Amino acid sequence: MEISVLDKGFLKLIDHFGNDLSVVKAARVSHGMNLTNPDRDKQLIYHLMQQGHESPFEHVAFTFHVKCPLFVARQWMRHRISSYNELSGRYTELKKEFYVPMFLKKRIKPAKREDKDVEYLKKEMQEFYLKSYSLYEKLLNRGMPREVARVVLPLATYTQFYWTANLRSIMNFLSLRADSHAQWEMQQYAIAVAKVVHEKCPWSYDAFIKYRYKGDALREAIG
Amino acid sequence: MEISVLDKGFLKLIDHFGNDLSVVKAARVSHGMNLTNPDRDKQLIYHLMQQGHESPFEHVAFTFHVKCPLFVARQWMRHRISSYNELSGRYTELKKEFYVPMFLKKRIKPAKREDKDVEYLKKEMQEFYLKSYSLYEKLLNRGMPREVARVVLPLATYTQFYWTANLRSIMNFLSLRADSHAQWEMQQYAIAVAKVVHEKCPWSYDAFIKYRYKGDALREAIG
Amino acid sequence: MEISVLDKGFLKLIDHFGNDLSVVKAARVSHGMNLTNPDRDKQLIYHLMQQGHESPFEHVAFTFHVKCPLFVARQWMRHRISSYNELSGRYTELKKEFYVPMFLKKRIKPAKREDKDVEYLKKEMQEFYLKSYSLYEKLLNRGMPREVARVVLPLATYTQFYWTANLRSIMNFLSLRADSHAQWEMQQYAIAVAKVVHEKCPWSYDAFIKYRYKGDALREAIG
Amino acid sequence: MEISVLDKGFLKLIDHFGNDLSVVKAARVSHGMNLTNPDRDKQLIYHLMQQGHESPFEHVAFTFHVKCPLFVARQWMRHRISSYNELSGRYTELKKEFYVPMFLKKRIKPAKREDKDVEYLKKEMQEFYLKSYSLYEKLLNRGMPREVARVVLPLATYTQFYWTANLRSIMNFLSLRADSHAQWEMQQYAIAVAKVVHEKCPWSYDAFIKYRYKGDALREAIG
Repeated sequence: MEISVLDKGFLKLIDHFGNDLSVVKAARVSHGMNLTNPDRDKQLIYHLMQQGHESPFEHVAFTFHVKCPLFVARQWMRHRISSYNELSGRYTELKKEFYVPMFLKKRIKPAKREDKDVEYLKKEMQEFYLKSYSLYEKLLNRGMPREVARVVLPLATYTQFYWTANLRSIMNFLSLRADSHAQWEMQQYAIAVAKVVHEKCPWSYDAFIKYRYKGDALREAIG
Repeated sequence: MEISVLDKGFLKLIDHFGNDLSVVKAARVSHGMNLTNPDRDKQLIYHLMQQGHESPFEHVAFTFHVKCPLFVARQWMRHRISSYNELSGRYTELKKEFYVPMFLKKRIKPAKREDKDVEYLKKEMQEFYLKSYSLYEKLLNRGMPREVARVVLPLATYTQFYWTANLRSIMNFLSLRADSHAQWEMQQYAIAVAKVVHEKCPWSYDAFIKYRYKGDALREAIG
Repeated sequence: MEISVLDKGFLKLIDHFGNDLSVVKAARVSHGMNLTNPDRDKQLIYHLMQQGHESPFEHVAFTFHVKCPLFVARQWMRHRISSYNELSGRYTELKKEFYVPMFLKKRIKPAKREDKDVEYLKKEMQEFYLKSYSLYEKLLNRGMPREVARVVLPLATYTQFYWTANLRSIMNFLSLRADSHAQWEMQQYAIAVAKVVHEKCPWSYDAFIKYRYKGDALREAIG
Repeated sequence: MEISVLDKGFLKLIDHFGNDLSVVKAARVSHGMNLTNPDRDKQLIYHLMQQGHESPFEHVAFTFHVKCPLFVARQWMRHRISSYNELSGRYTELKKEFYVPMFLKKRIKPAKREDKDVEYLKKEMQEFYLKSYSLYEKLLNRGMPREVARVVLPLATYTQFYWTANLRSIMNFLSLRADSHAQWEMQQYAIAVAKVVHEKCPWSYDAFIKYRYKGDALREAIG
């Protein structure tokens, strides 16, 4: 399961662990019980979410391979109850891949919107990206270590990482990042994460949207 | 995979996620690479462990169902980078199951060891357990809530819980608990955990024993 | 600042770090600013709480010395974003101190409430505690290690520990434990914690009660 | 206490909490004891460190105000058992402050070292930084939101944040970052952190260097 995000990024599901029934089994341990029947099991998930009993959702986890611009990765990695392994600009030469802002016209302050202007700005950004990469290559050629040369690269540079998080941590991520208070680019990744959770844990996802989610981007994007 | 531990306990593998190759894949993201061949992949795991690069081991996780005495559960739950859901003495009536110390003779101070004495002490403990359970039942019958009545039950009472932890956290657990500084009963559970890790992630387990493990109980128990 | 809790327990403030202004300073870093004036600083705290921006509250922390029964300590230590150091039943001989349930009459199911009965039950529990302690001492005298002998002691036995947690983690603790869904004994400790927070960080406490707290025990106990 | 780091950065101690004696008090709780005399208290700290009993060090914490380039901040924030509040490029306009690599000559591969070249490269980097900032300002002037405009800024841009961490977490940070395997710029900040710890918790610092620290940058820098 791989979802394209932004102009050159993606979110790829690498592995997942547990599902709605794992949540039910973990929760039933409290009562010395196990699965009963689908109706009651599903109902339990709604009950847990409504009451704020979130610990059973920690027994489900996902690993994703993410490709995103550096400024998105920086926001993502502020989520601490998670595991990350990222492409290193110290050990490898970074690629000539940069994010060119999308939906630019809509995001420019109304008073300043003019068609031509936007395309022009995008072109100027792209040209600047290429200049930064030329300087990066020049510094490498002159013998500068990769870890130093990369400091000229912009925050629009694409990076990649592995992300593993449990469902409880992911729900917290979705509440904060799949929301109009988050940067638009971050929201697109959060929506992609939500799509995977929706498919793999449909009961938990629905219960989350109903009782726990405080954001505003998912109802429209997924339903 | 279920392993009996102590007189009435067990460790049961419920689910696991990832394996040695998941560690390799997560580590290779740093270099923008993927799996190569088994020899080099295995070598990388030894290298990571030797250098103390432990983050790739966070992308492998295990869920266990554990049955153990309360005093063991108390030590276990001090490990905070883990998820727990435990049988609740507030929501359910606890069962008449208590741990009777094993290998008692060996653990009694040499000067005081006498065969008869040990059997006698074990019998006295068992009788006491039954008395505590009678009092528990009496308090329940007189209308006392379960959460209050249980306070008379001893630390030898068996409990159950679900435990989910990633491989890095489990390695830390094994270093501290599969060691002669830990209580003997705790060690038996740690050895059972190690057996599962050994079977599911043999390269990581071997590299752990070689470079990271500081305890002394596993080399003899598993090799 | 020391508060007596239950029949023999306490909560003692050992040290604290930061206050309402620390929250303000940490939050203002986001905008490249610092303290302004008390009115605006206070207002910011209410704004942060209302919007769910909880990270600035992590820069305030408290260390408490707690004395409580084992069954309370077990619930407490499920809070993982915290630091604990506890009295060890392996390294020291535990004291003859047990919790005798309070407000017993009110907690007994209405159909079974009778004055005499309650006093009688309390007396029976106390006698049982003494018997358990006699057995504990006997086992120690016969040469059994402390870690084994203690397994006969009941969950009502008092323990002690140091607890350090930041204000964000403490707010989560109060939401869950200063609430009628928590065990009554646990609530009493949570109320004591709230009193300290209320005194040391009055703006944060008020904002917490207004916007974040979902429990029901604090408004009545502190206001 | 403020320490200048790199060409425009700093590490400023904002607050700290606890000291060597706090570690001793927390550790003695295990034995139901308190402070004894300075000699024995100091000895205990060495013993804890040698035995790997690190939990008592969690009851000491520091808050720092840090100013560093973005690429350093990215490495720093991978430390998850910590609290961060950072200057936001979404809420504020970033300043025209960039890191110009130091000790460049030494870090260039020997075969390529030539005096003139280095000064020339530094000048070229500085000119590029100014161009990136001009483009940033232009994008802002054309009505682009700050969160989008900033994506053209390089990783050399300075940021600021508040960092709170306990002493155990800081020791882990020092082991990894005050070491020649870390990037030279990161090491300079780690050395500054070590200087503060050395002054505020001299016993813990010495015991750390003796028994726990595996890096190589501190012995020379501080002793």
